[in-house]
Amino acid sequence: MTVSAYLDHNAGSPARPEVVAVVADILREAGNPSSVHAAGRAARARLEAARTSVAGLVGAPAGGIIFTSGGTEANALALKGCERPRMVASAVEHPSVLAYATDIVPVDQDGIVDLAALERLLAESDQSAIVSVMLANNETGVIQPVAEVARLAHRLGALVHCDAAQGPGRLVVSMSDLDVDFLTLSAHKMGGLPGCGALALKNPDFPMAPFLLGGGQERRRRSGSENLPGIVGFGVAADDILRKDTILEMSDLRDHLESQALARVPAARVVAQAALRLCNTTCLALPGVAAQLQVAAMDLAGLMVSAGSACSSGKVGESHVLKAMGLAPEWAGSAIRVSLGPDTTKNEIELFLNAWTDLAGRKGLDVKQAAQAA
Amino acid sequence: MTVSAYLDHNAGSPARPEVVAVVADILREAGNPSSVHAAGRAARARLEAARTSVAGLVGAPAGGIIFTSGGTEANALALKGCERPRMVASAVEHPSVLAYATDIVPVDQDGIVDLAALERLLAESDQSAIVSVMLANNETGVIQPVAEVARLAHRLGALVHCDAAQGPGRLVVSMSDLDVDFLTLSAHKMGGLPGCGALALKNPDFPMAPFLLGGGQERRRRSGSENLPGIVGFGVAADDILRKDTILEMSDLRDHLESQALARVPAARVVAQAALRLCNTTCLALPGVAAQLQVAAMDLAGLMVSAGSACSSGKVGESHVLKAMGLAPEWAGSAIRVSLGPDTTKNEIELFLNAWTDLAGRKGLDVKQAAQAA
Repeated sequence: MTVSAYLDHNAGSPARPEVVAVVADILREAGNPSSVHAAGRAARARLEAARTSVAGLVGAPAGGIIFTSGGTEANALALKGCERPRMVASAVEHPSVLAYATDIVPVDQDGIVDLAALERLLAESDQSAIVSVMLANNETGVIQPVAEVARLAHRLGALVHCDAAQGPGRLVVSMSDLDVDFLTLSAHKMGGLPGCGALALKNPDFPMAPFLLGGGQERRRRSGSENLPGIVGFGVAADDILRKDTILEMSDLRDHLESQALARVPAARVVAQAALRLCNTTCLALPGVAAQLQVAAMDLAGLMVSAGSACSSGKVGESHVLKAMGLAPEWAGSAIRVSLGPDTTKNEIELFLNAWTDLAGRKGLDVKQAAQAA
Repeated sequence: MTVSAYLDHNAGSPARPEVVAVVADILREAGNPSSVHAAGRAARARLEAARTSVAGLVGAPAGGIIFTSGGTEANALALKGCERPRMVASAVEHPSVLAYATDIVPVDQDGIVDLAALERLLAESDQSAIVSVMLANNETGVIQPVAEVARLAHRLGALVHCDAAQGPGRLVVSMSDLDVDFLTLSAHKMGGLPGCGALALKNPDFPMAPFLLGGGQERRRRSGSENLPGIVGFGVAADDILRKDTILEMSDLRDHLESQALARVPAARVVAQAALRLCNTTCLALPGVAAQLQVAAMDLAGLMVSAGSACSSGKVGESHVLKAMGLAPEWAGSAIRVSLGPDTTKNEIELFLNAWTDLAGRKGLDVKQAAQAA
């Protein structure tokens, strides 16, 4: 019997069954939403319905949703499109944000952005700025105090962007609570398809410089024929998240995973365990056992986890996130990410715990008996 | 009985059945091609197989294929990524090319680029340049002498980009015959899905500046998690085009459409009829009847055609293509585009001819009896 469990949802969740059903149905449809004939109008209606759904997910105005090819492009659109000379980002941002940073704000040992440092950075220049702080980190799950960042940054005249790619389905994302100007979403991190994302604007009339030029789609803010299957699937995924609440279930499973991992392997450590974190993510360090070796051993056992983020082709290097948190190299180099999805089962968690504990024992670490099942 | 015929394939072709079958199957699969575990490796294998297929379609090296979110992004990647200070484009290029042009080359009355003017433009400056001339125009189907453009431009030290979005499936596209440095492809114009395209590079090691920054996918030339369903579908569409030859069938149908249209409505005109054109495209002018009115009347009859390109949301304006060809406004304003697909039937063409001739008659134009069916 081959067992396998996909525990790498932060790298990309499989499409939700509801998304698959709807997208499979419309793949055959022709119709460019810019065409005025019947097929074009039908495509346009589907596009706008999806826009309403995605806007509803995060409480954005529908007119403020700009569909993009994914989170990376949404980040570029926000950070280049706002045309601010300074871009201040936290040290633990995704590379697609850091690429545009002119100034970096440090984080503490839990990976939380240093608000005092941010204030000093913003105060030290008269140039207008945009601040970019993510909602939750893809590697550790640590949730940033984005509303406080926004309050501080707005007081000092800066715009605020939040990369919320890891948010929906794992916590409630409210643009008005966060009070950010721009919010990045990624469909395939929330049960939609890869190749699709959105930038949500608080002010739908913000004079955004387009990142992609041409046909003038998305109210001239993002040219290019729309990815209709991806966008429709994104809308279905958004509706589905609003219908279901799997956050507590994932949180219970994740807590079980962590408490069992630490109980069975006392030398192990959960990175930023005391911090407010996503319900589905654990960053687990097994001292003395290289992360890549853990990932490979789990893979042999059919268990798919990752070392750091999956965002660079074949890159195997140190994590800029764990480094920014001041983790000693021996800990950072032995940290893997286990990220759960809405359909992850307790049995899959047990499979992981058994395989991982077994590996720890083989590597000479002290291993305790598995606790009695509750 | 409701009849309907989709005759707007230049705005986007419905996905081929073979594409739908494969994509519907893989929608459920998780797996980020950058992940090292089993699901990631499976995704990576699918990605690379598609790359080989798309490269094979145009005779590019597989390493020279950079997948993008569509033709618009591929154009931007080529024209910005080559980092040449001058960008010389023909006057009939797509808006996603014209957006980056520093110099415009005129076209003749058939829409063919003026090679002498191009030579003068390139010779008048020492700044390095890239020339962008499309393979075939989306509105008229007119095919450009791209190989001659490339020979001329290369002799004068310029790079050459060709937007071939309208090519595959309508003519044989060979990067080596064209001898261009960069070639743009769009999946949804050739039976793949919208939201996916590619830039093909003659030299896979050309030092291209990336347009999207971040995770470093596509060998650092295009960051962002890959649109796997779109890319896999693109590969299937490419293979399918190489297997089947529907070019002659489309050409016969299109010629029948044109000869019948002109026979039945003597006042009508086919734009650039004498020029070398795509097998599937006709640009038909009905003097005195506004193009938008023709499109609306055909739509009421279930026949989906367009006025100019469908690339701008809701834009209804004069065609920059027809204007550049020197067409008088009364002709340009009455020209519609009928573009056939690989499954278009003779019956659909008859439906169009009947409805369009009927409209001409109602608008007071002299209309002849339909010719006896051959």
